[in-house]
Amino acid sequence: MRPIGVFDSGVGGLTVVKELIRQLPNEDIVYFGDTARVPYGIKSKETVIRFSIENILFLLKHDVKFICIACNTVSSYALPEIKNHFKVPIVGVISPGAREAVYATQNKRIGVIGTKGTIKSRAYELEIKQLDPKVKVTAVACPLFVPFVEEGWLSGEVVSTVAKEYLQPLKDAKVDTVILGCTHYPLLKPVIKRVMGKDVKLIDSAKQVAIEVNKILASENLLNKKGRGRTDFFVSDNPEWFSNLAGRFLGRPTKNVKKVNNV
Amino acid sequence: MRPIGVFDSGVGGLTVVKELIRQLPNEDIVYFGDTARVPYGIKSKETVIRFSIENILFLLKHDVKFICIACNTVSSYALPEIKNHFKVPIVGVISPGAREAVYATQNKRIGVIGTKGTIKSRAYELEIKQLDPKVKVTAVACPLFVPFVEEGWLSGEVVSTVAKEYLQPLKDAKVDTVILGCTHYPLLKPVIKRVMGKDVKLIDSAKQVAIEVNKILASENLLNKKGRGRTDFFVSDNPEWFSNLAGRFLGRPTKNVKKVNNV
Repeated sequence: MRPIGVFDSGVGGLTVVKELIRQLPNEDIVYFGDTARVPYGIKSKETVIRFSIENILFLLKHDVKFICIACNTVSSYALPEIKNHFKVPIVGVISPGAREAVYATQNKRIGVIGTKGTIKSRAYELEIKQLDPKVKVTAVACPLFVPFVEEGWLSGEVVSTVAKEYLQPLKDAKVDTVILGCTHYPLLKPVIKRVMGKDVKLIDSAKQVAIEVNKILASENLLNKKGRGRTDFFVSDNPEWFSNLAGRFLGRPTKNVKKVNNV
Repeated sequence: MRPIGVFDSGVGGLTVVKELIRQLPNEDIVYFGDTARVPYGIKSKETVIRFSIENILFLLKHDVKFICIACNTVSSYALPEIKNHFKVPIVGVISPGAREAVYATQNKRIGVIGTKGTIKSRAYELEIKQLDPKVKVTAVACPLFVPFVEEGWLSGEVVSTVAKEYLQPLKDAKVDTVILGCTHYPLLKPVIKRVMGKDVKLIDSAKQVAIEVNKILASENLLNKKGRGRTDFFVSDNPEWFSNLAGRFLGRPTKNVKKVNNV
């Protein structure tokens, strides 16, 4: 009956929460968004690890039975370093996304887009190569995509032009599958689809992560079958900004957004 | 002989450092950029004040004789609340920029552009109205300008299109003077000038701030006339990223960039 803990640098992780609610409607969820220190995508590995540990300790105070890292940068930089430190099971978004992409590609050419941190970590590439060493991976950072999404520039000339420039290396590499390696990017699916062409598959980790969470909870006998699916949202700054943006990611308004100092 | 302390949320404050070095070549400077928590422009007043106090305490450990807040968001949100708490004199960038704009306008219509925080605070407007209640102020937030500058998109179709959209209210208001109310914006001067027209004056606080610092140091008998003009840079994250970007703001490469934990 204990809740699932989910954290992200800000609001993007709500795309994962949306899938968790859909697939596990009885689970209670405690979400933490580190909006005082957002974004993480431009920050160093060392700093991302420090912030992540602080976020995990915050969630543990809420007696979570499981932690889902709903942020690609954290999953890339911090998860490998910290997952063995804690008793609570922790999953990230990299493995599920990589698996789905390897399953989806026909020509064994996968593109990865993400923040500077995610791309620099090469986490997707390493995971994909382990699953299938023959896959060729082309990875590019798209640092303006997060500001575009947060400012609501989801279509039009500006975002198209930037997307064309960012995605050109993926077109040149003739990838048939692209991993949307940042929780903000699913909101840019239409423009990415238009640039890449309709035959290119776009992989959004959120769905796969929820499947993985479901599987692990079941195997550990931790599923909540009778809960009412309560969600509580905590942020380290700007609860109003979070609530305003949340609708865009969650598909419905958020209530219960509380500001806390996590450090 | 003690150094001047300068801080900013990140790298933008270097436009002020550049002017300080030019106008006060004998002064030693200790700069702190809070790159672990950058940007401040989207964060709440309460959080910006908390971070600012931590940054000031860090600079005080370096025995600074004077503190210059080289960040419009901090100057807007935090300076009025904290300047009386500390013995050390503290100046921000709002008053000098507002004064210069009031002096420059002919038609008494001033535009202000800045981060969401700076615009929401109405700090420039309040300062201008105090100097001349007849001036009409039109203020707009330009949240994509900082990411553009940091990603090196300083000209071209994308930044022009966004600038046209952001600046339209200033054109509609027929302002003859625009305050570049964010230390990143001077790097976009050419595109802003093109959109606003060549007769519109662009006010960049950095120069005025350095004049003010000079004046206060002289009046308090704190000028360093024999120093060698050493500059030390401290950041809370990513010294390499800071060094790479610094050249764009400072006009020369930075050395002595050290990573510290300010909290």
